[in-house]
Amino acid sequence: VKERELIDWIRGRTPVSPHVLVGIGDDAAVLETEGRLVVTTDTLVEGTHFATGDPPVAVGRKTIAVSLSDVAAMGCRPVAAFLAVALRAEQSGAFAQGVLEGALDIAREFDVPLAGGDTTGTTGPAVLTSTLLGTAPVGRQPVLRSGAKPGEKLLVTGALGGSRAGRHLSFVPRLREARELVSTARPGGMIDLSDGLSTDAWHLAEESRVLIHLFADRIPVSPEAAGLGSALDDGEDFELLFTLPASMARLVQETGLAGTPVTIIGDVLEGGPSVRIVDEEGGERELAPGGYEHFA
Amino acid sequence: VKERELIDWIRGRTPVSPHVLVGIGDDAAVLETEGRLVVTTDTLVEGTHFATGDPPVAVGRKTIAVSLSDVAAMGCRPVAAFLAVALRAEQSGAFAQGVLEGALDIAREFDVPLAGGDTTGTTGPAVLTSTLLGTAPVGRQPVLRSGAKPGEKLLVTGALGGSRAGRHLSFVPRLREARELVSTARPGGMIDLSDGLSTDAWHLAEESRVLIHLFADRIPVSPEAAGLGSALDDGEDFELLFTLPASMARLVQETGLAGTPVTIIGDVLEGGPSVRIVDEEGGERELAPGGYEHFA
Repeated sequence: VKERELIDWIRGRTPVSPHVLVGIGDDAAVLETEGRLVVTTDTLVEGTHFATGDPPVAVGRKTIAVSLSDVAAMGCRPVAAFLAVALRAEQSGAFAQGVLEGALDIAREFDVPLAGGDTTGTTGPAVLTSTLLGTAPVGRQPVLRSGAKPGEKLLVTGALGGSRAGRHLSFVPRLREARELVSTARPGGMIDLSDGLSTDAWHLAEESRVLIHLFADRIPVSPEAAGLGSALDDGEDFELLFTLPASMARLVQETGLAGTPVTIIGDVLEGGPSVRIVDEEGGERELAPGGYEHFA
Repeated sequence: VKERELIDWIRGRTPVSPHVLVGIGDDAAVLETEGRLVVTTDTLVEGTHFATGDPPVAVGRKTIAVSLSDVAAMGCRPVAAFLAVALRAEQSGAFAQGVLEGALDIAREFDVPLAGGDTTGTTGPAVLTSTLLGTAPVGRQPVLRSGAKPGEKLLVTGALGGSRAGRHLSFVPRLREARELVSTARPGGMIDLSDGLSTDAWHLAEESRVLIHLFADRIPVSPEAAGLGSALDDGEDFELLFTLPASMARLVQETGLAGTPVTIIGDVLEGGPSVRIVDEEGGERELAPGGYEHFA
């Protein structure tokens, strides 16, 4: 039976985990976890989140990486991954195998077993859905979007914008950075930058019921970005945006996290919920969520 | 923000649960569960698992129902549902709302919160992926495909075949039946019939390393089925196939489960892994998995 062979092939390429009692091949996986659980699901569509000509290994890798980024944004560690794919008939060979290899590669890289999934056919764009389960470190709680508090500083890992040039397929989910962060500090609120800073800062502001001031001249713009507007709105950065008390924020900015630069880019204030961008001359204005803002 | 309104709309239509600490709207849901966890994910594709003209409420309902059926087949109770959809632009209005209503309806029916999801666009067939988490009742373990033991009887709920005539969109996942089963008996192995009896019996035989004898004249054929071949191979029955010691099997056949008829349809024997079908005259032959078998 072909399904049987596929299951055995996957079983041989996924890490053994004490949390996964039954992996791929039953009606459901059986897990044993401790503490609070986080669950996230993300869908990638051919032509939108990846191009038809992109290497299938990179596509599979990204599918899992996007959900790993969500687990990182909760300050948690991944415990099991699930992958459901709908592929066209002509993608059932090398493309399907590449996708699976890419997914298994990044899962192994972060020691996460692929514990289940589903494969179906489609006549249109390929659609790939990952589900990731994670747990908070012992004694810690998941870090929410709603936890940002007035008085805290806003920080971001890495640099933003221009992800479409290639980084969106190869980014490393900030799991190590999140792990170091929650083991040394108590972030108030946290979110990963998937929609773009301008939109995701709004998510943080709305869920936390706060006003956020972004410092235009402090936002780290990646070399591939077309200026600040691009860093604000491009999306798919998959960096961590989080808040910390001021003294801890300065310390984390100095040391970085797991080798990744960290920058203080704003203040959390009473008021809002709203996001305002403050320029070098002290001028400020509301930043439209998802809206492209021109800065000369 | 439109996403914001959608999240609030869903929050108002999903049951409050002590297991869901943070539902839809963060980077991930936060759950608190006890005991062993089961996780299953299933994808439905427009044109394959439902037709373009099918009522969207029925489509959304089926997406969740298929995964609830997997949770039932593990002898578990559902604790949280996740729904990821990729829809065409013209499906973003009434169709999307219908799908969501159907998903929320069946989730409420079984008291399961919709705790997260994702929505994206596609230019091809709609693709819907559900992920369901469940837990075993206190003091019980999930029931696996690998637990069937020689000497046990094989039983099935309901009647098989002809699901495509409509039942595949409206079936009730056998959660109540599974709950009654595991509270009164100790099933050896269990699987839900999604691929069809001929294939799913093979899954059970292979995972349990046993020989299964199916009694041709005992298989309950649904009124919509085109004879025994249809009951064996049509698939999408979403009935439970499970094994019990002989005396318990007879008792369960007499009483049914939660109002649903249950029929002893076979024996579990040493040998195999294989599935053989035995006719009224005692003639037997191997049943090809997924293969259509003609019975006059």
